[in-house]
Amino acid sequence: MKALVYRGPRDIAYETMKDPELHDDRDAIIKVDKCAICGSDLHIYHGETFSEDTGYCVGHEAVGEVVEAGRGVRQLKAGDKVMISAAVGCGQCRACLAGVVNKCANNAAGCYGLSSRLQGCQAEFVRVPAADFNAQKIPDGITADQALMMTDALATAWFGARNADIQRGSTVAVVGLGPIGLLAAEAAFIMGAARVFGIDLVEDRRAAGRAIGLETPDPAHAREIIQDATSGRMCDSVIEAVGHSATIRAALGLSGKRGTVSVVGVAQDRTFEFPMSKAFGMGLTFRIGTCSVPQEWPELIPLVQSGRFKPERYITHNLPLSDGVRAYDLFDRRADGAMKMVFDLGL
Amino acid sequence: MKALVYRGPRDIAYETMKDPELHDDRDAIIKVDKCAICGSDLHIYHGETFSEDTGYCVGHEAVGEVVEAGRGVRQLKAGDKVMISAAVGCGQCRACLAGVVNKCANNAAGCYGLSSRLQGCQAEFVRVPAADFNAQKIPDGITADQALMMTDALATAWFGARNADIQRGSTVAVVGLGPIGLLAAEAAFIMGAARVFGIDLVEDRRAAGRAIGLETPDPAHAREIIQDATSGRMCDSVIEAVGHSATIRAALGLSGKRGTVSVVGVAQDRTFEFPMSKAFGMGLTFRIGTCSVPQEWPELIPLVQSGRFKPERYITHNLPLSDGVRAYDLFDRRADGAMKMVFDLGL
Amino acid sequence: MKALVYRGPRDIAYETMKDPELHDDRDAIIKVDKCAICGSDLHIYHGETFSEDTGYCVGHEAVGEVVEAGRGVRQLKAGDKVMISAAVGCGQCRACLAGVVNKCANNAAGCYGLSSRLQGCQAEFVRVPAADFNAQKIPDGITADQALMMTDALATAWFGARNADIQRGSTVAVVGLGPIGLLAAEAAFIMGAARVFGIDLVEDRRAAGRAIGLETPDPAHAREIIQDATSGRMCDSVIEAVGHSATIRAALGLSGKRGTVSVVGVAQDRTFEFPMSKAFGMGLTFRIGTCSVPQEWPELIPLVQSGRFKPERYITHNLPLSDGVRAYDLFDRRADGAMKMVFDLGL
Amino acid sequence: MKALVYRGPRDIAYETMKDPELHDDRDAIIKVDKCAICGSDLHIYHGETFSEDTGYCVGHEAVGEVVEAGRGVRQLKAGDKVMISAAVGCGQCRACLAGVVNKCANNAAGCYGLSSRLQGCQAEFVRVPAADFNAQKIPDGITADQALMMTDALATAWFGARNADIQRGSTVAVVGLGPIGLLAAEAAFIMGAARVFGIDLVEDRRAAGRAIGLETPDPAHAREIIQDATSGRMCDSVIEAVGHSATIRAALGLSGKRGTVSVVGVAQDRTFEFPMSKAFGMGLTFRIGTCSVPQEWPELIPLVQSGRFKPERYITHNLPLSDGVRAYDLFDRRADGAMKMVFDLGL
Repeated sequence: MKALVYRGPRDIAYETMKDPELHDDRDAIIKVDKCAICGSDLHIYHGETFSEDTGYCVGHEAVGEVVEAGRGVRQLKAGDKVMISAAVGCGQCRACLAGVVNKCANNAAGCYGLSSRLQGCQAEFVRVPAADFNAQKIPDGITADQALMMTDALATAWFGARNADIQRGSTVAVVGLGPIGLLAAEAAFIMGAARVFGIDLVEDRRAAGRAIGLETPDPAHAREIIQDATSGRMCDSVIEAVGHSATIRAALGLSGKRGTVSVVGVAQDRTFEFPMSKAFGMGLTFRIGTCSVPQEWPELIPLVQSGRFKPERYITHNLPLSDGVRAYDLFDRRADGAMKMVFDLGL
Repeated sequence: MKALVYRGPRDIAYETMKDPELHDDRDAIIKVDKCAICGSDLHIYHGETFSEDTGYCVGHEAVGEVVEAGRGVRQLKAGDKVMISAAVGCGQCRACLAGVVNKCANNAAGCYGLSSRLQGCQAEFVRVPAADFNAQKIPDGITADQALMMTDALATAWFGARNADIQRGSTVAVVGLGPIGLLAAEAAFIMGAARVFGIDLVEDRRAAGRAIGLETPDPAHAREIIQDATSGRMCDSVIEAVGHSATIRAALGLSGKRGTVSVVGVAQDRTFEFPMSKAFGMGLTFRIGTCSVPQEWPELIPLVQSGRFKPERYITHNLPLSDGVRAYDLFDRRADGAMKMVFDLGL
Repeated sequence: MKALVYRGPRDIAYETMKDPELHDDRDAIIKVDKCAICGSDLHIYHGETFSEDTGYCVGHEAVGEVVEAGRGVRQLKAGDKVMISAAVGCGQCRACLAGVVNKCANNAAGCYGLSSRLQGCQAEFVRVPAADFNAQKIPDGITADQALMMTDALATAWFGARNADIQRGSTVAVVGLGPIGLLAAEAAFIMGAARVFGIDLVEDRRAAGRAIGLETPDPAHAREIIQDATSGRMCDSVIEAVGHSATIRAALGLSGKRGTVSVVGVAQDRTFEFPMSKAFGMGLTFRIGTCSVPQEWPELIPLVQSGRFKPERYITHNLPLSDGVRAYDLFDRRADGAMKMVFDLGL
Repeated sequence: MKALVYRGPRDIAYETMKDPELHDDRDAIIKVDKCAICGSDLHIYHGETFSEDTGYCVGHEAVGEVVEAGRGVRQLKAGDKVMISAAVGCGQCRACLAGVVNKCANNAAGCYGLSSRLQGCQAEFVRVPAADFNAQKIPDGITADQALMMTDALATAWFGARNADIQRGSTVAVVGLGPIGLLAAEAAFIMGAARVFGIDLVEDRRAAGRAIGLETPDPAHAREIIQDATSGRMCDSVIEAVGHSATIRAALGLSGKRGTVSVVGVAQDRTFEFPMSKAFGMGLTFRIGTCSVPQEWPELIPLVQSGRFKPERYITHNLPLSDGVRAYDLFDRRADGAMKMVFDLGL
């Protein structure tokens, strides 16, 4: 099959790989219809890999069609159109059954495309372990593009907003207005936020924010502007959707007393100089972590079905998989308005 | 002063009454700018009064200006524009301080305009007990019409929606699309509902429902239509905004397993034949009660300020107080598109 | 095999039945080690059956050993000691996966021993459908007697207490001090109740209540005594563990303003005359339903393991299955101090 | 009057000071019956003061009798026995009215005995601002010693446990078994914890922990022992009751996936090297802050009244105020079994 393969820093190659096979009778093989590049794939692209490996297929966001299912697979059969959770669990322990893949008792919690251990899905086919659990038929009324957004980006944004303890009537700030930041801002409104500030250095992204109802202060003076706009109370909830120490610091500066700061960006630095005595005086909650994708689906599915969420509007590019090298380059440079890059295997 | 006075069934008179005076140094006298008729005022109009009394001023929804404040009043002073909570508490017990007027330990919990004990506010002036607690300065960015809606209707709708245990992604039904039902439906969306069904016999009200995003099935077949639309799951939350046994029965019929039915309409029958074994099989939560208005304000104020709630759009009539008799008649007959009748004392 | 079989009112017979067989490859056959009589089995004993059927094996509380597992069973194997959930679900739909068997999308939600459709477990063997889901290996540190109590009684008591919205510092009342009422009272303390009143007509049961810290007012004057003891505030939460209209009425009378009444007893009357206007004045929450047993296990298992719950102390009788007729008779008459009757198949 | 006064590092003097007077008509003057030394008073004793000031009276935990009340004081009168909240708010803003002193909109949030701005209560008399709000009559059934513990230590312990997101059935660890750590551990049980580990270097304190049901692993190997005892899952909630970077680091090491670490010890270092990527992998919640004492009272009062909490048992010393110098020295050295030092002004 054809696949995008990590060869080294800034070297993602479009290559021929061996087709995946079932390893276990609970596995399924999915023919990929669409897959996407996630912001966190850029870490790999920049050589900040999650393993010592090279030569593995990358990517963890995909939808497709079941072409083969192990005989232990109960809920899926050949021909089913499915969305694949970026977070992978054993699907059998109580934590997985409760949807919290991240607490998987069998430590199966993982992700596609980080090493050869579990090949990625920017490919023609992908093997899904514990397929009954780690994939789900695309529910009626949800398009392939919407389902693709639900495999990671929308779920992560929703999780990040949940982690921010948003209450009805809250004042919220989102730091970083990429697809996940913008979706988290929409999530904040759905969760009842009264007002949401969006902080980003790029005017185009702030414009995208204003289009969904955000207030987008001049990033150079965001703290002062929000202080003024809130009579000094600052924000009840702050969502950080970048993952840099500098933006985490900025997020902490936007929180009010008894506020919550939720970091949803992938942590890039091993440690962070946490402002302990300031946090003590404020009564701060600081929350960080990755999303257990299937845990978020029961709330998200009806919201997408009913049209309250339209995550597909952040898709800016639809390309054939063979354009993978160019796609990574455009995305890395945020060129050509790149927000969400989708590979359509039908193209 | 001039006031609307209850004389007997269908006999609300526009009369001259004695001006109110301070009874306690925590009282304030408010010059009414605007007041409104509540659906529950029709109970009195129909002679289903809450006391044996007659000759008292009616009404419990008003905004106005402080003209006199007892020396124990700390937070308000002459000239302040205020909104008056329809629910009245002592303002000193722990329940009141926690905002739950209905649990007032001093049993001060009451309402204006139900008897001579606490005169109503469809008048030029009204006495507000424990004014620091039972009234609040109209927050910046909120108009008099909006504040007027917050004194009861919007708070009650919000409370009714809260009582319905609406979760993110929920399917909700609202039975009765008067102002409170429509506001409760809007509340359901703000609380994260994915879809909201609106049930009403009157096509105009269903049209108003569709304008805010409701699905409005033919009321003669609502149960079957919703069953079909939800693949048999029915609704997670049902809000009853009428208060009749028949509509409560209808509301119970729309609930799914483990659903919640919240009755926000004023209960008109002393008892109700509750379908116990059916409820047992479903795992039902049934909740009913009146709103502790100030308890709802902290969430509502920012939502109105930011424009997520525009409760004033349900105001259909602005009349001088001297048109009170006609206003009650129109409202009773739901004539002339009557939804929310406001008396503007400046007219 | 030997089994207790329903033949008609007050006619439970100890008989030979055909051994159960696998119907589906997700089934398992369990050799019963211990099983118990539930208060709701008395409904059947009294001829108030849940189906038109006769000649079926009764009982829905059992622990035992897997002797045969279909090849679709993943988590259990022959030799495993398991506890069987009294509530049976398909184990595949999202509701079941979330633990809420009662919302099973495939309407598999059921119970053993109510008809021939799903034979009971007061027998030497029982077939468990979807065994991975409807049974669980007895966790380390939990005895067979404890596990037996978790298959229904303790889970139902815990669910009933959860349904009562018990807050830290709450005042609680429990109406009916059978095993479920007493366990619900213990649950109330574990959930943070400050004080718990226990109401029962039988002095022995009140004594059992006092032994676990309950206040047990004279049942003839319970309302007045609690009124006095709470300075008129009455109870925040009331758990009804009988299921009669009279005791439900009593429970409603013990609730304070904004209180919750949770009915955990099996509803015996089809309808109930609900005191609507009183409930409206109080702001009442009324909740009723059956327990999705596996939903309660994640909280209960560690509480039993650590010794905070010792549900086995309500077991008053250990008898061989051949004593079934006598056991039902004793239990029905509450003779010989009968609380929880256990059949030990090893005797 | 006589008072304990901060003169400089390790120099707390027993001196004569001017009696306090009313500054505002909402103030009250309290004749102190009992007051106590808090662990955080040692910061001052060590010269790590919260202001540049010297010569002020120290202490923030006291109960006593109202001797003078401004005419704006409504709920208290001369002769009332009161407990004084260590956290001081304006008592008028919405945050204070909701009990969250720490969010006081008027920035009145403060504490006694940190500077001359608000004199401490280790004295014969103390001025309480906004006395209706910042003090409360000691409820019936609560002793002076219990009330004294509620002015700060018990409330802080309860808050720290609440901040740890303790669920029913949780596994909890408490790092630091001083009075606040031990009370937090008791709180964890009342909140439904299944098991609680207590970590302290001092064997006497571990013994005190075992007496209330804690498991007290060898502190040198606590992590490994807990790992083993929890099959690798570690703790759901960790409460840090010391405030040192080293103990905070230890607390983080005891948390399991999706766990919460609550720091209730007073933060002693300005910053803390937060293990970001580890926290990201775990999905951590980190919470820190000071307690809004009156916010905790509604839950605590009934729990103390009913005897579930007996906070007075941590009082090890009752001394006259004139022994203040010795008391600070003993407490600082943890000599003579010092846990909670109380000055009884009647001695």
